[in-house]
Amino acid sequence: MIDPGKDAGENLRKLREQKPLIHNITNYVVMNFSANSLIAMGALPVMAHAENEVEEMASIAGALVINIGTLSDPWIRAMLLAGKTANKNNIPIILDPVGAGATSLRTNTAKRLAKELDIAVIRGNASEVLSLSGEESGTKGVDSIHSVEDAAQAAVELALELDSVIAITGENDLVTNGDTVFRVHNGHKLMGMVTGSGCAATAAIAAFLAVNDNFVEAAAFALGYFGLAGQWSAIRNTRPGSFKVGLIDSLYEIGPDDLQTGLKLEVMHET
Amino acid sequence: MIDPGKDAGENLRKLREQKPLIHNITNYVVMNFSANSLIAMGALPVMAHAENEVEEMASIAGALVINIGTLSDPWIRAMLLAGKTANKNNIPIILDPVGAGATSLRTNTAKRLAKELDIAVIRGNASEVLSLSGEESGTKGVDSIHSVEDAAQAAVELALELDSVIAITGENDLVTNGDTVFRVHNGHKLMGMVTGSGCAATAAIAAFLAVNDNFVEAAAFALGYFGLAGQWSAIRNTRPGSFKVGLIDSLYEIGPDDLQTGLKLEVMHET
Amino acid sequence: MIDPGKDAGENLRKLREQKPLIHNITNYVVMNFSANSLIAMGALPVMAHAENEVEEMASIAGALVINIGTLSDPWIRAMLLAGKTANKNNIPIILDPVGAGATSLRTNTAKRLAKELDIAVIRGNASEVLSLSGEESGTKGVDSIHSVEDAAQAAVELALELDSVIAITGENDLVTNGDTVFRVHNGHKLMGMVTGSGCAATAAIAAFLAVNDNFVEAAAFALGYFGLAGQWSAIRNTRPGSFKVGLIDSLYEIGPDDLQTGLKLEVMHET
Repeated sequence: MIDPGKDAGENLRKLREQKPLIHNITNYVVMNFSANSLIAMGALPVMAHAENEVEEMASIAGALVINIGTLSDPWIRAMLLAGKTANKNNIPIILDPVGAGATSLRTNTAKRLAKELDIAVIRGNASEVLSLSGEESGTKGVDSIHSVEDAAQAAVELALELDSVIAITGENDLVTNGDTVFRVHNGHKLMGMVTGSGCAATAAIAAFLAVNDNFVEAAAFALGYFGLAGQWSAIRNTRPGSFKVGLIDSLYEIGPDDLQTGLKLEVMHET
Repeated sequence: MIDPGKDAGENLRKLREQKPLIHNITNYVVMNFSANSLIAMGALPVMAHAENEVEEMASIAGALVINIGTLSDPWIRAMLLAGKTANKNNIPIILDPVGAGATSLRTNTAKRLAKELDIAVIRGNASEVLSLSGEESGTKGVDSIHSVEDAAQAAVELALELDSVIAITGENDLVTNGDTVFRVHNGHKLMGMVTGSGCAATAAIAAFLAVNDNFVEAAAFALGYFGLAGQWSAIRNTRPGSFKVGLIDSLYEIGPDDLQTGLKLEVMHET
Repeated sequence: MIDPGKDAGENLRKLREQKPLIHNITNYVVMNFSANSLIAMGALPVMAHAENEVEEMASIAGALVINIGTLSDPWIRAMLLAGKTANKNNIPIILDPVGAGATSLRTNTAKRLAKELDIAVIRGNASEVLSLSGEESGTKGVDSIHSVEDAAQAAVELALELDSVIAITGENDLVTNGDTVFRVHNGHKLMGMVTGSGCAATAAIAAFLAVNDNFVEAAAFALGYFGLAGQWSAIRNTRPGSFKVGLIDSLYEIGPDDLQTGLKLEVMHET
């Protein structure tokens, strides 16, 4: 990766050419926003959660999103079924452990999914990631009470333990496979004022995973792209309602060349 | 139908006077967008899906939407219960077979609903309509891989077989009862960039069915109206996030006279 | 309460400092809008509905929203479980009886929740409130067919009977604990064109309940604040799609001083 901006731009170009199908088993709150975000990026979203359907849907997808934001037992069963199908077919899975650390249902389910499935990327906020590391994270509902830095070391260890990429979003996103660590310096603070912006970032990673099998790069590029859309929207919008609309507009508007120029990625190597 | 624009305008006027209640059993992704679309049109939406409630709700509605976009077995049972109540009370049903052709759950459920219920209108994209005709449609999630033209003949045959109006939306919508064929030349390509725009078009048809018992006309008028709203929004908005907001604004803004003038309907007769 | 505007402003200031967690068991249609509204106000929303999670989530919340807009039996069980936990921990509950009066499932569930739980505030439209009083209200889906005035007397009696604050929203919101009656003269008619604006008003009350244990005041202040946001949005937006976006913007933009100045509250005392 000599020029990450160029590679990220190429990913976006490929995404818009291939229009991969992204199968989302995600929470009720963000379904609409995630779907519109994926379309604006160039992907084709589908939401399906029934146990008697998810295996078939997952098997035709380019990537699978598993998001535990509004959980119940039938959905957990569907997540496991879809995940196993995805694994069998080498379809990358991204897990979004929304609210892990807030209730034991969420913490235990996230841990179980991470253990029973082969997960390409886990994206969460700092408290959620800490809770997966076995720390008492005390996630405030679905909101982090920790900084990205608080969870940086845990992310590296968790990445090695699970053989997954860990992505922590927050003030400066961190993405690691346990070896390389990326810091993403794109983004805007209004993103924290839009419900599901983390979930849509997860969806963006899914779209990039569908076109780049270097998962740690794909995750970093996707978060850079998503953060850049936040920056673009913030130029025109200073309040969260219109900012959210502008975020979708910007995901659509940003082209491969814009991403190449705008990506702000810092690459570090562990040990 | 000497002046379809005038008749369509009259339908819209009647809709805004009568404010029919539209009972939606629809998917999680689009519930909010469908509800806001229906309100902007002049109708009163209600969403209700519990088996121990849908019969009562359907019986007081002006039309019933059955949309299979996020399906599960309890919802299928509710759809059948609500549908039978609607049939008993001569309340028109519109079926939206979202994703039929992508999984057997969706294809089989759509076929079962079309068989067991007396459906006024089925609205889908070309791949979904082909899948109902028994063709291997290979719907890509919920997105069509066929053109409207690919499914035109199947639509006519399906309309005759099911005694339902078939509406295929796409570049130029097609509406047929097996005898008359309408082509709707309203619409804008950004509509394809908004999740649930097809579902909201279905909701528009429901609203028109509630005030016009000539189902083939009602469906064509509704799609013309909905497409015109897309055109109006596209004048002010060139990106999907703001386009979606503008679509709701335009549904609200378009008056009967605007629809009379703006409707672009082509009428053809089969043999 | 010598200067209600000042007290309301102080509540908003406290809300933004404390950022209370609001646990919502609410309907699918409005989840996204309620969450974004709560964030814009300054609160932290979480949605959780599973029976094996709601007690844990409710116990860490500042207030609990129970909204019956898309009901089913498992959700009713979760509402009761969460509500009992909230009561045990002195966490205020607000009940939104969406569609009570339209079906017996909704009417009976709303009555059961009001009876079995200790509810701080019930917020509904006039028909919904009448249905809780045992009147044949004939709610048209989720829309009122009565004026606020029609239900004013029933609200006072219901407040005394249930020992709850009753808030009726409509042209001029009414809030009463059976003794004091507030009329709120903020608001704008476009609010009625946005699905879930009532539900978001309920969420606003929840946020104020989390920082003010004078429930009747908290409810009146919250409705004044929410109505003021509608007025602000209506200055810039004349159509429902953009009005909704502007409502979120305005909830965010309005500061404590703006609320102090803009609140239009009329205080009356019964007998």
